[in-house]
Amino acid sequence: MASCLSRVFSEEELEDIRLRAIDWALAHGISMRSSNLSEDQDKVVHAPFTLFPTTIPESNLQQATQSMVYFSRLMHHVAMDHQLLQQSFKHVIETDEFSNKLWQIYLQIKDDNRVQPVSLGLFRNDFMLDEKKDSPGSETTFQIKQIEFNSIASSFGGLVSQQYFLHRYVMDFAGEKNTEKQMPYNRPVEGLATGLIKAWELYQNKKAVILFLVSHNERNVMDQRFLEYEIYKQNKNIKVIRKTFDDLVKDGKLAEDRKYFIGKEEVGVVYYRVGYAPTDYTTDKIWDVRLELEKAWCIKCPPIQYQLVGAKKIQQVLAKPSILDKYISDVSIKQLIQSTFAGQYSLDKGEEGDKALNMAVNNPDQFVLKPQREGGGYNMYDEEMKRFLEVNRESNERAGYILMEKVRPKPQVNYLVKAGIPFIKSLCISELGIYGCYIGNKNEEIYNENCGHLLRTKTADTNEGGVCAGFSGIDTPFVIPQ
Amino acid sequence: MASCLSRVFSEEELEDIRLRAIDWALAHGISMRSSNLSEDQDKVVHAPFTLFPTTIPESNLQQATQSMVYFSRLMHHVAMDHQLLQQSFKHVIETDEFSNKLWQIYLQIKDDNRVQPVSLGLFRNDFMLDEKKDSPGSETTFQIKQIEFNSIASSFGGLVSQQYFLHRYVMDFAGEKNTEKQMPYNRPVEGLATGLIKAWELYQNKKAVILFLVSHNERNVMDQRFLEYEIYKQNKNIKVIRKTFDDLVKDGKLAEDRKYFIGKEEVGVVYYRVGYAPTDYTTDKIWDVRLELEKAWCIKCPPIQYQLVGAKKIQQVLAKPSILDKYISDVSIKQLIQSTFAGQYSLDKGEEGDKALNMAVNNPDQFVLKPQREGGGYNMYDEEMKRFLEVNRESNERAGYILMEKVRPKPQVNYLVKAGIPFIKSLCISELGIYGCYIGNKNEEIYNENCGHLLRTKTADTNEGGVCAGFSGIDTPFVIPQ
Repeated sequence: MASCLSRVFSEEELEDIRLRAIDWALAHGISMRSSNLSEDQDKVVHAPFTLFPTTIPESNLQQATQSMVYFSRLMHHVAMDHQLLQQSFKHVIETDEFSNKLWQIYLQIKDDNRVQPVSLGLFRNDFMLDEKKDSPGSETTFQIKQIEFNSIASSFGGLVSQQYFLHRYVMDFAGEKNTEKQMPYNRPVEGLATGLIKAWELYQNKKAVILFLVSHNERNVMDQRFLEYEIYKQNKNIKVIRKTFDDLVKDGKLAEDRKYFIGKEEVGVVYYRVGYAPTDYTTDKIWDVRLELEKAWCIKCPPIQYQLVGAKKIQQVLAKPSILDKYISDVSIKQLIQSTFAGQYSLDKGEEGDKALNMAVNNPDQFVLKPQREGGGYNMYDEEMKRFLEVNRESNERAGYILMEKVRPKPQVNYLVKAGIPFIKSLCISELGIYGCYIGNKNEEIYNENCGHLLRTKTADTNEGGVCAGFSGIDTPFVIPQ
Repeated sequence: MASCLSRVFSEEELEDIRLRAIDWALAHGISMRSSNLSEDQDKVVHAPFTLFPTTIPESNLQQATQSMVYFSRLMHHVAMDHQLLQQSFKHVIETDEFSNKLWQIYLQIKDDNRVQPVSLGLFRNDFMLDEKKDSPGSETTFQIKQIEFNSIASSFGGLVSQQYFLHRYVMDFAGEKNTEKQMPYNRPVEGLATGLIKAWELYQNKKAVILFLVSHNERNVMDQRFLEYEIYKQNKNIKVIRKTFDDLVKDGKLAEDRKYFIGKEEVGVVYYRVGYAPTDYTTDKIWDVRLELEKAWCIKCPPIQYQLVGAKKIQQVLAKPSILDKYISDVSIKQLIQSTFAGQYSLDKGEEGDKALNMAVNNPDQFVLKPQREGGGYNMYDEEMKRFLEVNRESNERAGYILMEKVRPKPQVNYLVKAGIPFIKSLCISELGIYGCYIGNKNEEIYNENCGHLLRTKTADTNEGGVCAGFSGIDTPFVIPQ
């Protein structure tokens, strides 16, 4: 793929650009706490980022962007479909304790008509560009393949909104062309904040607060703060508060009328930036809090059904032939969505699952094994995957995972800038995330917008994707015709 | 003085506001490097700041602001007046080695007509509010008293431009009224950048760079970077480079035609953020570089004459009766400037100096002893001053200092937020700085504008003022009628 750079830069030039970029990042909040220790709350280190933007064909970005509202709508409908959820999770909950806990909460609230009917989703749908070789000799083209649909705590909308300006600054300084068409305006934080504000308005109490539910001493705090600042920019009358699950155990209260309070503050909207990982629920009291919030009248971002449909299991189920017919009547929309699905296989015990398992064991380089839960760092590849599948051939464990065909994006040259990591030219691969905001209740779509995009880029020799886990950097697209 | 707050905040509320303010500061670049070690170049800690703005009577801020263009013009004229400079520095250079070094450079370039005739000053004139008790029982009013005139490396124009927004954010969050009239728009970085750009335009070479001369691994880098970013915002075609004296020793070159180059880059404007302290000149080669720059055709911010007139000695000389008559004909302007002068006394050996010395020794709580050079942290007070004067009664050392009447500002309650320092309610005093940009040559004023203001606030029980030295915090004014 063509580079966004017109020439090769010397090491001295690159070092100059790197130092400028680091200071720009630090001056503009592309940063995270240096640790989660209390004594480090007054310090930050720059977040990992790529020095230059990454090239992406216009048609791929367009397709991913255009598909977002259809994906959000689909996921909302699936979340409201008890039958499908039940079938899908039947085996998962037998083996995956965390999924089971969520499922039990879901069962307790699903028919409760005193629960807030309006749902808010701030989603991010992640893709990779798969090389498509139509015929030998013809030019290489790419197709977007869905990697995962994030339905809870989708991150980096704040930081990438700053990274966009950093990359334009770097390109200007490097003397490289960067028109608005090549680097389309991209500030997801604006759309995401609008979503939270719209939900707050629907709650109809001007004194209610928006609650950001966060980790204690969260390192990725700036990403969250930018969302808060954008809410402030759009509506100065809304108060945002940040609390942990432990704070809620202590001060949270579900009132008789199903209003939820922290101390004296009534919560209008709760925005989860925690609660997606088993480790977030350290005590039973935290599970109690989660149940109370689900029962409450406040609007949840996301409600538990949305969190459930972010599971890999649902992704795999939706990839089955003709499943989409139930939710989408428009053929071209259905094709658009289906075209982004990579091959996905259930590992539930039985004939179908055995077939998939054997396929992976025999061709370990062609698949990736993914657990149900969100948050990077747990996928298995190659020999590790093979060993795991062989060991668990007779165990129910395997149903907690799905098998996915490996997508093979084309590596591009870039430079990852990360504190404490040597700065070297690397072959990198990127994941494209599209942000979407959805508000709806069982029978009505209230709001549905695409909010912009994110690239996360990692060196081609690492397999995992989370920026916080330390493997990849925040990046933005440089659009080329195709 | 009336507070900017309408009520008392609980400790819990204050802690909430403090944590929000720290993150806002970090997200918006109100920060400095955590150390000057190379391994810490990718981290920052928030700069010290006050949690709330500080009240200041409208008339005082207005007077200080209005006086700026007259002060800048005056200092320019004094800088061009060899006779006055010579008389003033006669004794100083005998005792103060640093002043002498500067003086020798000045002598070498003052009549050289191949030196760039255009001077750029980015000044900051610092005042304190002195309590003025007209008659017992009448309401207390205040008058501004000049503390010092900074003619080189005037800092915090970048950080205070962000602090302004932080204080508005804090006031909004605290539910406190803060109109544009109460917190007048204040972004000094804009005017300072405009000054650098205008100088660059006067140099008339579109390929020339603006050189920021800085310390190695400067901690207060963000303050400087914001100036760079503002230049980029106002004119994307100007390249700013950052170099140390050591870089210039290695790569700097004064060409035959007096153009100054770093590597292949021609310098159009040199902006000193270093060079004001004796410790900045660690080798003779650095003094050689300074001389070369002074000889060069590039525009200096500031040229050596401007640096000289920032000495306390000049401040003391200008405070003498009728000296201003030479430079200012307009009586009201003269009065405006004179009204800001506190009593100031030479300590040069001789009858006049002996009288001043005895006055200070007998009333040590009423004076402060100030060295010639800029940069906080060296003033002497009380017993320390008394001892120093007694010990040096017969020494020429004393001529390196001037004696100044203590200005007694009225303490106000505020909260200093500084990493590693307990957060407590304190009685604080503030210094008001007014930024000005001046461009002129011997016979012509080319540009002269006031660029906004800064408050630096410290706890009333510390005597020194530099923010970087760790004694005070960045602050902005909250204007009350009077």
